[in-house]
Amino acid sequence: MFIQNAWYMAAWAHEITQAPFPRTLCGVSLVFFNNPETGEIGALHDRCCHRGTPLSLGQVVPEGLECGYHGMVFDEHGACVHIPGQARIPAKARVRSFPVVVRDEIVWVWMGDPANADPARIVSYPYHNDHAKWPHKHQVYRVKANYMLLVDNLMDLTHLAFVHKNTIGGNPKAHVEAQMKVTPRDDGLHFIRWLMESAPPPTYRKAVDLAERIDRWMEFQYIAPGTVLQWTGGIDSGKNAAENRDQPGFSLRIFHGLTPETDTTCFYFWSAANGYRQDEPQATEDLFREIDTAFKEDKTVVEAQQAMLSSTGEGDLVDIVSDAARIHMRRTVDRLAQAERQNA
Amino acid sequence: MFIQNAWYMAAWAHEITQAPFPRTLCGVSLVFFNNPETGEIGALHDRCCHRGTPLSLGQVVPEGLECGYHGMVFDEHGACVHIPGQARIPAKARVRSFPVVVRDEIVWVWMGDPANADPARIVSYPYHNDHAKWPHKHQVYRVKANYMLLVDNLMDLTHLAFVHKNTIGGNPKAHVEAQMKVTPRDDGLHFIRWLMESAPPPTYRKAVDLAERIDRWMEFQYIAPGTVLQWTGGIDSGKNAAENRDQPGFSLRIFHGLTPETDTTCFYFWSAANGYRQDEPQATEDLFREIDTAFKEDKTVVEAQQAMLSSTGEGDLVDIVSDAARIHMRRTVDRLAQAERQNA
Amino acid sequence: MFIQNAWYMAAWAHEITQAPFPRTLCGVSLVFFNNPETGEIGALHDRCCHRGTPLSLGQVVPEGLECGYHGMVFDEHGACVHIPGQARIPAKARVRSFPVVVRDEIVWVWMGDPANADPARIVSYPYHNDHAKWPHKHQVYRVKANYMLLVDNLMDLTHLAFVHKNTIGGNPKAHVEAQMKVTPRDDGLHFIRWLMESAPPPTYRKAVDLAERIDRWMEFQYIAPGTVLQWTGGIDSGKNAAENRDQPGFSLRIFHGLTPETDTTCFYFWSAANGYRQDEPQATEDLFREIDTAFKEDKTVVEAQQAMLSSTGEGDLVDIVSDAARIHMRRTVDRLAQAERQNA
Repeated sequence: MFIQNAWYMAAWAHEITQAPFPRTLCGVSLVFFNNPETGEIGALHDRCCHRGTPLSLGQVVPEGLECGYHGMVFDEHGACVHIPGQARIPAKARVRSFPVVVRDEIVWVWMGDPANADPARIVSYPYHNDHAKWPHKHQVYRVKANYMLLVDNLMDLTHLAFVHKNTIGGNPKAHVEAQMKVTPRDDGLHFIRWLMESAPPPTYRKAVDLAERIDRWMEFQYIAPGTVLQWTGGIDSGKNAAENRDQPGFSLRIFHGLTPETDTTCFYFWSAANGYRQDEPQATEDLFREIDTAFKEDKTVVEAQQAMLSSTGEGDLVDIVSDAARIHMRRTVDRLAQAERQNA
Repeated sequence: MFIQNAWYMAAWAHEITQAPFPRTLCGVSLVFFNNPETGEIGALHDRCCHRGTPLSLGQVVPEGLECGYHGMVFDEHGACVHIPGQARIPAKARVRSFPVVVRDEIVWVWMGDPANADPARIVSYPYHNDHAKWPHKHQVYRVKANYMLLVDNLMDLTHLAFVHKNTIGGNPKAHVEAQMKVTPRDDGLHFIRWLMESAPPPTYRKAVDLAERIDRWMEFQYIAPGTVLQWTGGIDSGKNAAENRDQPGFSLRIFHGLTPETDTTCFYFWSAANGYRQDEPQATEDLFREIDTAFKEDKTVVEAQQAMLSSTGEGDLVDIVSDAARIHMRRTVDRLAQAERQNA
Repeated sequence: MFIQNAWYMAAWAHEITQAPFPRTLCGVSLVFFNNPETGEIGALHDRCCHRGTPLSLGQVVPEGLECGYHGMVFDEHGACVHIPGQARIPAKARVRSFPVVVRDEIVWVWMGDPANADPARIVSYPYHNDHAKWPHKHQVYRVKANYMLLVDNLMDLTHLAFVHKNTIGGNPKAHVEAQMKVTPRDDGLHFIRWLMESAPPPTYRKAVDLAERIDRWMEFQYIAPGTVLQWTGGIDSGKNAAENRDQPGFSLRIFHGLTPETDTTCFYFWSAANGYRQDEPQATEDLFREIDTAFKEDKTVVEAQQAMLSSTGEGDLVDIVSDAARIHMRRTVDRLAQAERQNA
């Protein structure tokens, strides 16, 4: 039911330590662990092939991951390399392994056929490596909603005026009147909204000194199935922000990683990077808290939405004008899913 | 599965304030709200027609109920009257609305075809409006049982001797020997039980001075599907209570409103009115607490009964003599349900 | 789905007091109660034949078990012996009863056809009656796993080295190299493992003074479907323990009673008997605590295993050498289940 041949964000790199780390992605129970000799991260089906016990109850040993029940050991490719008291290891004694790449502070996992796992297809996010210019903090939520409802959320920003009216949203009217330019791409879409000569929302004012009116932009890039890259900011009106966004003002980048856990739950990974007072850790911390408060507002709404849709189905819904980017996004995902079914 | 063309008690009037009020009735998630201009109460399907978000997360605005996600506004008839940033409102942009009538401190809702919603069919309960003669208090429980199990409970009062032996029940033998007269009616049934020359139960003694022996009555009227009106009392024996129940003694009225939430849960609304020491608020409070204790005993029993029936089904049950009114009640409901299916 | 024609452990005798005692076994809700006149224990379906209310909400009266709803009374054979206010008792007014035998401090129940309930087939465990030589304590857990996973656990003791490495397990290598002798029997199997010249595990050292090397035995008898009798101990090496286990050293007996509650839950009854410092109650207490800690480690593992198998099914599992006794045990149970299906 999920797109399989894709890189999904599985974890923040710092989440994977020496202890086996269980996480269910796309309906599959996985266990992540560090091979202490190679430093490589392995991702295995979290189910010992002997009696089905979760391998995440076990421990990492020099040879790999040792099951905590009867002691079978598996390497990061899922091959059984040791059975206590038994010299011969049956050929069938292996668990499924999944390709893993760690890049830009993110652990990516490929849920489909390993033969197709091309690291070149992984979304690049160099800002995570530029701590001087983009100091940032990470977060992850488990959200009781299909991951698509969170992507929907990011594709229709008119919700800012209602869900976030007390935090990052600001003046409702400004959002509704925003000019929006959507550009389809092969792997998703790009859009940019400009709110010209609008009042800065509370979050912006707390962060930097701004004039009464600013020109605000919200630039989003969606890369299917679950990545959204955001660059948002505002510069005092009259400074031609549209032509040059690298002037003093408010500026932040958010990485959004949405990964299915099950059909009705997902993980929402995000980082928020401070692009305005980079040498002040407190400014980064304050930004993080603001965003965290706002995104928990989104979490509340989409969880209630999921509960209702689970109960009533998705029939009889009505699209409106602000759904343009959302509809394009859904079509991209449907197209990828259909292509995958045809190749299966 | 539920009778649709019927007025069900949805709430006590005081429960509906300015904030949107969600409650699921007959398996349908509803949201109730006050139109601040007309003072009318609206009852809508609690599901925005745009993206399925519960409207109860939103807020009441002058034009109606505003969705908390993207700001669509609906009037109390379910028509969309505003879409942010969009002049044209699609004809399909509406949510289902349900007829509502507020009467006798009760919010009634009609779950079936609005064309059939005749307010004349609403049960009248004038005692709620007579605070001088019938001072009373309201309560509502969410009970994990099909609402019929609570109606069953009220139709077979032999349970008083066992479930309520320490509260309102009194002497077991008296209950079993009670004379019972059942009168079928088109919309339900009426019965009255007389316990002649019986010892007053603890609740009665606490309330008023009584002789060693009283003549007790329990008069119940069932109006399908979910209303039971009760008048209960006792007068010292030898005063011909059967001919004149308006003599000094113990007397209370209870309104019971049973409304399905789901197939295995319901709301139990009730009020208890003090008909013996009307000018003493503490007497009304004491009565309320006694009844509350007793009805929570019923709640415990029917929830355990529901859990067992959900697990084993309802096969192999054996009717006994005391089931007479209960069986008549069930036949009435079955007849109404069958008529509704034939008209559908 | 469960073997019906078998004696299952239902409770420890001390669990059944004057109050009705509910427990679900093999998917059937039962209520146990003492007939106060005969002292006999009755086991009935915990569902009144009148309205399905659990009889365990009621109370024991001289005539039997009285339903807490409308007062019907049932004797320990399930016959209704009293209906309030009704002289004639319908022939259908009865609930299913189950044969019960109390022996060796254990309440046994027969879940199948009562005609086949032969007490001679009950497992004998005389050590429960010998408090001088085998002082002991009882325990019961509710475990969220099929009872077979716990029998599996006891049939493959290589898990001691991994699950119990900090408690009763001791040196991993010793376990793996243990000599194991499995003897099939009609009703199950017997096995004995000897760990010669091995270091005593922490539990043993805490209990008695032992040499650096001991000869350890673990003797297990499995009687289908759910009983495992264990005799475990160790004697200083060089004293010919294999020929004479009644020498000073460490020795304990454990009774394991595994009884299904549902397909994915069970009760794990066990007793631990101190066979080394019988006149010291604290030694018995200490042993109990050690075993309790260890068996809760097993509980954690099999509950995680059950959750994984419920999610993924049991396909693609690989047997290894240490599964020999386990596989034999499973074949015995499958054979009994198949025989039962053919006779049905």
